Amino acid sequence: MHQSIRHPLPATLAAELGAKLGERFSTAPSVLDLHSRDESYLPPSSPAAVAFPQTTAEVRQVVRACAAHRVPITPFGAGSSLEGHVLCVEGGLSLDLTGLDRIVAVRPDDFDVTVGAGVTRKALERRLEDHGLFFPVDPGADATLGGMAATGASGTNTVRYGTMRENVLALQVVLADGSVIETGSRARKSSAGYDLTRLFIGSEGTLGVICRLTLRVRGLPEAISAAVCAFPGIDQAVRSAVEVIQWGIPVARIELLDAQQIEAVNRYSGLDNSRAPTLFFEFHGSPQAVREHAEEAGKITAEHGGETFRWATEPAQRAALWHARHQVYFADLALRPGARVLSTDVCVPISRLAECIRETQAETDRASFPVPLVGHVGDGNFHLLMVIDPSNPRELEEARCLNRSLVRRALAMEGTCTGEHGIGIGKRVWLEAEHGPAVGTMRAIKQALDPQGIMNPGKVLPDATHSLDAARGHAESMQ
Amino acid sequence: MHQSIRHPLPATLAAELGAKLGERFSTAPSVLDLHSRDESYLPPSSPAAVAFPQTTAEVRQVVRACAAHRVPITPFGAGSSLEGHVLCVEGGLSLDLTGLDRIVAVRPDDFDVTVGAGVTRKALERRLEDHGLFFPVDPGADATLGGMAATGASGTNTVRYGTMRENVLALQVVLADGSVIETGSRARKSSAGYDLTRLFIGSEGTLGVICRLTLRVRGLPEAISAAVCAFPGIDQAVRSAVEVIQWGIPVARIELLDAQQIEAVNRYSGLDNSRAPTLFFEFHGSPQAVREHAEEAGKITAEHGGETFRWATEPAQRAALWHARHQVYFADLALRPGARVLSTDVCVPISRLAECIRETQAETDRASFPVPLVGHVGDGNFHLLMVIDPSNPRELEEARCLNRSLVRRALAMEGTCTGEHGIGIGKRVWLEAEHGPAVGTMRAIKQALDPQGIMNPGKVLPDATHSLDAARGHAESMQ
Repeated sequence: MHQSIRHPLPATLAAELGAKLGERFSTAPSVLDLHSRDESYLPPSSPAAVAFPQTTAEVRQVVRACAAHRVPITPFGAGSSLEGHVLCVEGGLSLDLTGLDRIVAVRPDDFDVTVGAGVTRKALERRLEDHGLFFPVDPGADATLGGMAATGASGTNTVRYGTMRENVLALQVVLADGSVIETGSRARKSSAGYDLTRLFIGSEGTLGVICRLTLRVRGLPEAISAAVCAFPGIDQAVRSAVEVIQWGIPVARIELLDAQQIEAVNRYSGLDNSRAPTLFFEFHGSPQAVREHAEEAGKITAEHGGETFRWATEPAQRAALWHARHQVYFADLALRPGARVLSTDVCVPISRLAECIRETQAETDRASFPVPLVGHVGDGNFHLLMVIDPSNPRELEEARCLNRSLVRRALAMEGTCTGEHGIGIGKRVWLEAEHGPAVGTMRAIKQALDPQGIMNPGKVLPDATHSLDAARGHAESMQ
Repeated sequence: MHQSIRHPLPATLAAELGAKLGERFSTAPSVLDLHSRDESYLPPSSPAAVAFPQTTAEVRQVVRACAAHRVPITPFGAGSSLEGHVLCVEGGLSLDLTGLDRIVAVRPDDFDVTVGAGVTRKALERRLEDHGLFFPVDPGADATLGGMAATGASGTNTVRYGTMRENVLALQVVLADGSVIETGSRARKSSAGYDLTRLFIGSEGTLGVICRLTLRVRGLPEAISAAVCAFPGIDQAVRSAVEVIQWGIPVARIELLDAQQIEAVNRYSGLDNSRAPTLFFEFHGSPQAVREHAEEAGKITAEHGGETFRWATEPAQRAALWHARHQVYFADLALRPGARVLSTDVCVPISRLAECIRETQAETDRASFPVPLVGHVGDGNFHLLMVIDPSNPRELEEARCLNRSLVRRALAMEGTCTGEHGIGIGKRVWLEAEHGPAVGTMRAIKQALDPQGIMNPGKVLPDATHSLDAARGHAESMQ
């Protein structure tokens, strides 16, 4: 299933990179294979070689060398992307940034940290705990922070703390010509020039390589409480979530699992949650505030027929309550051995959420494979985890068809085709439907910053002039 | 003091715009004069004509016509910019957007609104009140929302609710070629393509004309309390503010006025605040939370020698307490008849704030004109309001010298030369010092989106290839 490599590495480039990086430059098949896939449903696409730089200076050298040979560069982090961001659809070099794993500085007095792009979310979490701090963006996977920024990731805490956009102060980026820029300072806010920080967040490696990040962090809340509540129907669950938001109750997390999802998790983890649509809440604040907010939320859920809250404040109990939520992805994969998950990712204004989910489930109820639902419903974002056999063209086509219908529905409701997973390969065809002529502006920026088209070609922009036929064929075959 | 007009309007263009807009196209001297100045210390710079479009379609027509003649366009809102953003340093057309004043939609269920670029902050506030909502970005002046987005404005509420960057969901922008784009949807978050919304926020009209904005709004807090506290010295006041932030007390506002500033306000408004450095607090939340947070803050200020909190929860009392803060700008202008204010705007990491203010005041104490200080200290942002006679070259040079020293200090402390006022004309020389090679990236984006260089030339980018000599000379003469 590997794509044909369109850009083999010129021998001179391979020799140059080998001389620079020694055994941190590899063309070993097992290494290529590891860098040819992510967590998406997309078929693998192998690089011609993989480089493992450990410093920004090394990233610059590698990028300069590739630029001189017009060889594509695809940054690689934890490989947890869901839309094929790290797949080398034009071959070339996979740039593995996990060696940039230094936590450069933790500054509790300023609530900020500076980290290498390869530092993972959990590695940072462990380090911050000692300081009574945490980084609030949690996409589930133990992604690298560079990858999270490149993807514009968010996750369960977003309803309270924002996405990567709101939690990155500055980036260090190596551009397509090998030059390096710093996009900002450590000031909490700035109006000095164009906002390059936000431009690179969500650019998926197509404009440059993020090497270092300065992140905003938060003090661990004095108290945390978790609550779980099952409902007679999904509509009541969604309406409760929407009302909690509309009443301004400052939830830290509010997640929806549908009955099918609960059942998958029960089976996978031996749990006994009611097989019913369920909301998972988390509240952060003072002990008193946390109790008040949970009570207010409980009143709303009760009005919508929700069961009595099961709730907990102790860490072990909280973890047990939330366990079901954290197991979603692997529980779904386990539903069908050998299956892959094609995850949808629309996000709509919350006033349309109940309607969007209702109309969508009327379609997915008839699907020939499991389609559990999990949602960051406080943001209007939900995922259908379509558990398909990717080698079965009929299932793949059915899944694409359901996704197409869902994306159209979300766009008609003034929503987006992707709340947090990014465009990658699979959603390129939707970019124009969502953004219209603004795609031309994006393309002009791409052309300005990467005139050779070597930065992660075949991603984000549809039908890009820089993309070779391979990428186009690939993307089309995926739709 | 008017600049010589480098771009008079070609007669054909004037005839075309006159035919389209009727009396909403003007070359009357009084109209030109009104559009030749802002609230900055910079000398006026007149456009050759002013257009008053009322719709996006009209903005497109005007931009297309100007583009065809390569005539510069400078967007104009309330004229409240502080760095010369709206000054027509190359002549051409001033595009007055105040006619785009329609509040297109208020959607309480989604906590968002869509407004024309010419809607002012206070007009929106009045409309939102009926729905129990408010828009949290408050830069003081009754600026237009389009101008606030273009400037990347923030203000007193930022410590709690963020800047324009965090509170704009999407923009409608007319580009330099007259095409129109929508930069986003109404989804609360999106990872679909490059973040054009944030790119245009803070671009000061140099990349396109913001015509319409979709903004995130908030529910009015259940309770608001205000508190005021005077200190024996400014260092104790700053340290208190920093500790309040570091303890994680969720203040909505925390403002510092130094003794000189308090005296100016007392004189201007007949108040009797203690002539001492003073912190102004505001707390938002439930009645109980608001009381708790005020008490916690009060403990911290007491430890630093602060007087007993004067505090209030009723609207009238709150307004009276905060009155001194709101009068700052006009109180300072009144210190010297005919004077102008040159306001500095650095922002530093809060761990460096006390040091930055101390070192700065050691210099300004010797200034030959009043230099009151006001600070959004929760963000590390403060302003020196240098009350100068702008026609006195010695004072202007002294003010520039103080500003230069302050900006160097802030940059050395990993801060920014402008927290919220923007670059405009006056701070262009600092862009390179702050951003280094990233200015090259900004310039590439400018070139890609405005190849003719007609969008607000002479602003943001230093020494731009598109800027005529007039603009360069102007900017240099200002430093």
